[in-house]
Amino acid sequence: MFNDNKRGAGGNVKVVDATLRDGGIVNSFFFPAGFASALYAANSEAGVDIMEFGYKVSKKLFDIEKFGEWKFCDEQNIRAVVGDKKSGMKIAVMSDVGRVDLKNEVIPADQSVIDIYRIATYSHQMDEAAKMIEFCNKMGYFTTCNIMAISKDSRGTIKAALEFAAKSPVDVIYIVDSFGSLYPDDIFRLCELYGETAYKYGKKLGIHAHNNQQLAFANTIAAHSAGVEYLDATVSGMGRGAGNCYLESLIGYLRSPAYRLEPVLRFVREHIKPLRASGVEWGYDVPYLLTGLYNAHPYAAIDFLKAGRDDYENFLREIKNGQKK
Amino acid sequence: MFNDNKRGAGGNVKVVDATLRDGGIVNSFFFPAGFASALYAANSEAGVDIMEFGYKVSKKLFDIEKFGEWKFCDEQNIRAVVGDKKSGMKIAVMSDVGRVDLKNEVIPADQSVIDIYRIATYSHQMDEAAKMIEFCNKMGYFTTCNIMAISKDSRGTIKAALEFAAKSPVDVIYIVDSFGSLYPDDIFRLCELYGETAYKYGKKLGIHAHNNQQLAFANTIAAHSAGVEYLDATVSGMGRGAGNCYLESLIGYLRSPAYRLEPVLRFVREHIKPLRASGVEWGYDVPYLLTGLYNAHPYAAIDFLKAGRDDYENFLREIKNGQKK
Repeated sequence: MFNDNKRGAGGNVKVVDATLRDGGIVNSFFFPAGFASALYAANSEAGVDIMEFGYKVSKKLFDIEKFGEWKFCDEQNIRAVVGDKKSGMKIAVMSDVGRVDLKNEVIPADQSVIDIYRIATYSHQMDEAAKMIEFCNKMGYFTTCNIMAISKDSRGTIKAALEFAAKSPVDVIYIVDSFGSLYPDDIFRLCELYGETAYKYGKKLGIHAHNNQQLAFANTIAAHSAGVEYLDATVSGMGRGAGNCYLESLIGYLRSPAYRLEPVLRFVREHIKPLRASGVEWGYDVPYLLTGLYNAHPYAAIDFLKAGRDDYENFLREIKNGQKK
Repeated sequence: MFNDNKRGAGGNVKVVDATLRDGGIVNSFFFPAGFASALYAANSEAGVDIMEFGYKVSKKLFDIEKFGEWKFCDEQNIRAVVGDKKSGMKIAVMSDVGRVDLKNEVIPADQSVIDIYRIATYSHQMDEAAKMIEFCNKMGYFTTCNIMAISKDSRGTIKAALEFAAKSPVDVIYIVDSFGSLYPDDIFRLCELYGETAYKYGKKLGIHAHNNQQLAFANTIAAHSAGVEYLDATVSGMGRGAGNCYLESLIGYLRSPAYRLEPVLRFVREHIKPLRASGVEWGYDVPYLLTGLYNAHPYAAIDFLKAGRDDYENFLREIKNGQKK
């Protein structure tokens, strides 16, 4: 057959499940009881390399009444899920620049159940991001630097941010398509741009895609084919707005004996379908396409849908006008 | 900005709307009153180059009680929609090998409202397809040859089929991903393979993609970037099973003054949303992913969903076993 279905994950692919973290943005991290434990079990059985449990942000800055536990990722809450952590799957959390008091809230890695800190930053915050990376690195953590919203940045700005990241002790630098506005050919060019700096300093690359134009999976496999090793996905694409790359698509695509599709399919039936049926909504819709097309933050589309609007033509005009400002 | 949003359709892109034809498979061509007229108006205003109205198959072979009008595409029904056909948009119909009595049912092009016959064929029916193409060409029609299910064919079989098509008087040869099993890198290789034969004989290429793995749009723009000129899409991806490339995504992507997004957005709100609300279902779902991944006909997934099943793991096993037979 022309389509011989022979791919394979290559030597160094790391599949990263970000369902609790990016999915948590949809429901303010209020997942049903048992959801996180079942996901941990499914991911472990599926061979997922890294599971991101949520954000690690300061309780001084965010009201603990307004968010579920994975906004804060307390040690004991993660331990309640992972037990003796037999599976070998690594545990990650994400911290945004300016949203965590690292020195008072991060314990040394050898005392923590957490393996990886993912530092989320905008390109203009790179000096602060680099300090956070340095701190987490010194505490013994593996770190990634996720530079957000780069579809709004110039090539020069991206290069400068990459230099900052690459000179830090970070392990992985992420290409993040925050607005779901990039096409596979953009991804190929970004892989080259990121690689020029990152590989020179011995850093790995990662990809985190959004599905506004139904390209999250396509962009992820484009990055994979260009040598990017850390591949983010979420079960059924659960994530803010249009959501992310589907974990089940990615594992199916990789066709590697290192990964199994069945545990993810079971999790979809047992936990994602009921979650959707309970009214939690994410995934492609027209307004997300429009913010993706015009490189705008998905919040505008989320608000549009929450308001029950469907006057897409007006929304398109609003987005285009916003872009000119 | 890195994402400078400057693309453009290139000189010779033809956007083909196949909503009534591929979408008609979902609802047996029973569209609500006014749907076809509104779609014709929207497509005309959007700058769509070709609108496929449906199938042209023999009423001797299909029960007219069981299908709506666009299964048969009678002249007077199309004329009732297009009126005096001012827009310049071309009108296409699709005929499958063995399903139409051309000599008795096709009138000369200069007497017909139809401009284009698209001949759908499997690779093993190419001699018959070539005869149909020859007949339609002699009657004065523009023709395309849509070779289906080629993801099941060997390279040699595809090459032989292409030779047959290219030596016929056909105008366009289509790459058709019937099972939604192909990845963008497959599409690039197919564009090369098709181009080797097609361009030698002065033929154009087209692409018709399915969304089983949420790659219909990604595969369509991959083909576009490889020089394919005839790009099929349907409004909101309406089409059998997982559906097709979204027309709104494609027009948004092209960013050409030749196309306008607003009429399509309006059609989505006024006609697609009510159609979905009335219970007509299509689009990505887990079983379509699985038939796509394992290069199987989507009928298995359609039956699975119609039966109300969600035991995805069993279905995966069934698909894999079916593949071994």
